Amino acid sequence: MKDSLIVVSGGMDSITLLNEYAQDIALAVTFDYGQNMAQKEIPFAKLHCDRLGIKHIVIPLGFMNKYFKSSLMEGAEAIPEGHYEDENMKSTVVPFRNGIMLSIACGIAESNGLKKVMIANHGGDHAIYPDCRPEFIQAMSSAMENGTYENIQIVAPYTNISKTDIARHGKAIRLNYAETWSCYKGGDKHCGKCGTCTERKEALRDAGIEDPTEYED
Amino acid sequence: MKDSLIVVSGGMDSITLLNEYAQDIALAVTFDYGQNMAQKEIPFAKLHCDRLGIKHIVIPLGFMNKYFKSSLMEGAEAIPEGHYEDENMKSTVVPFRNGIMLSIACGIAESNGLKKVMIANHGGDHAIYPDCRPEFIQAMSSAMENGTYENIQIVAPYTNISKTDIARHGKAIRLNYAETWSCYKGGDKHCGKCGTCTERKEALRDAGIEDPTEYED
Repeated sequence: MKDSLIVVSGGMDSITLLNEYAQDIALAVTFDYGQNMAQKEIPFAKLHCDRLGIKHIVIPLGFMNKYFKSSLMEGAEAIPEGHYEDENMKSTVVPFRNGIMLSIACGIAESNGLKKVMIANHGGDHAIYPDCRPEFIQAMSSAMENGTYENIQIVAPYTNISKTDIARHGKAIRLNYAETWSCYKGGDKHCGKCGTCTERKEALRDAGIEDPTEYED
Repeated sequence: MKDSLIVVSGGMDSITLLNEYAQDIALAVTFDYGQNMAQKEIPFAKLHCDRLGIKHIVIPLGFMNKYFKSSLMEGAEAIPEGHYEDENMKSTVVPFRNGIMLSIACGIAESNGLKKVMIANHGGDHAIYPDCRPEFIQAMSSAMENGTYENIQIVAPYTNISKTDIARHGKAIRLNYAETWSCYKGGDKHCGKCGTCTERKEALRDAGIEDPTEYED
């Protein structure tokens, strides 16, 4: 039954979720909040939705660039290099980003008669991003259930698995990860050095997938 | 200690909250989501903030008019008349509006080092608006606590009191309710007939306040 809306960025995780659960998904929403990589991610989100016959919309959140603090919205030079769980990666946190995306997705879902909102947060994000942890997802789902007539719920099936596990799911459905974007710098090619490029390389390697990504280095 | 952000519309409830808790408030945020009465409410929100020396910002959410269903964004003719608790008032619900406003407010609060987000939902709203009920506020506060580094919380002191009680609070601090806007139609004057005008009249009367509002009828 197509009763779900998905929050999809165009990265490995959400594109895997989109393809894995396509039969449940009626509407896909991408947020443009001024992140460095928006113009690299959005075309991939659209490409997969078009191929799957799922309606795709982009929600602009221009005010976030003005009022939020995060290196993710300050250009390539501000992005720290190194491993994803390093302390300096905290600068890439966009405060309560998942709360904002899920809330807006919830309102759009209710406006369209949909019952579930899907998101691809995963276990590897917990160290750095509080709004990716199971306690957050559970409380936010409860807020959405209580705050809507239709008792809309969050479906976040990757909450307790790793990015490598997600890549294994993608491998099983023969997903081409060249058609996803990770790099926080948003340049012509993946930089290969920032936290999310490091994580991407490791996940593909550990899942036994030949990395199809073109890196700068 | 000025560690709070307030969500303020320019209506009776949030303007009372703003004035009653001004000593705690560092930043006030009004949302323009295409509601009929935005251009009537916003100047009142700004007026009170200026007078109290509180910084005031307006966050535009233009996408809501495009993707959300609610008579509140469809012009004066779409607004039902009658009592606030009537079934037809359900058309004025903007799906998960308070969830969206609180989430964005939460991200702005964390970006500015603030610890609390205030909102003026009240007991009279529970019948029609699920995202005004205590269960929603509690779950949403838990989502914000778990989803931020600073464990941001919601402060919603009017959750279990009536609009008449709020008007009594306003009377005690000599608030001039002529400097607030309620009407959902957003015309030159308050229509005096829609649900929120009906509620405004009753609350002022029951609190023993001479109604300073200019009504059309």
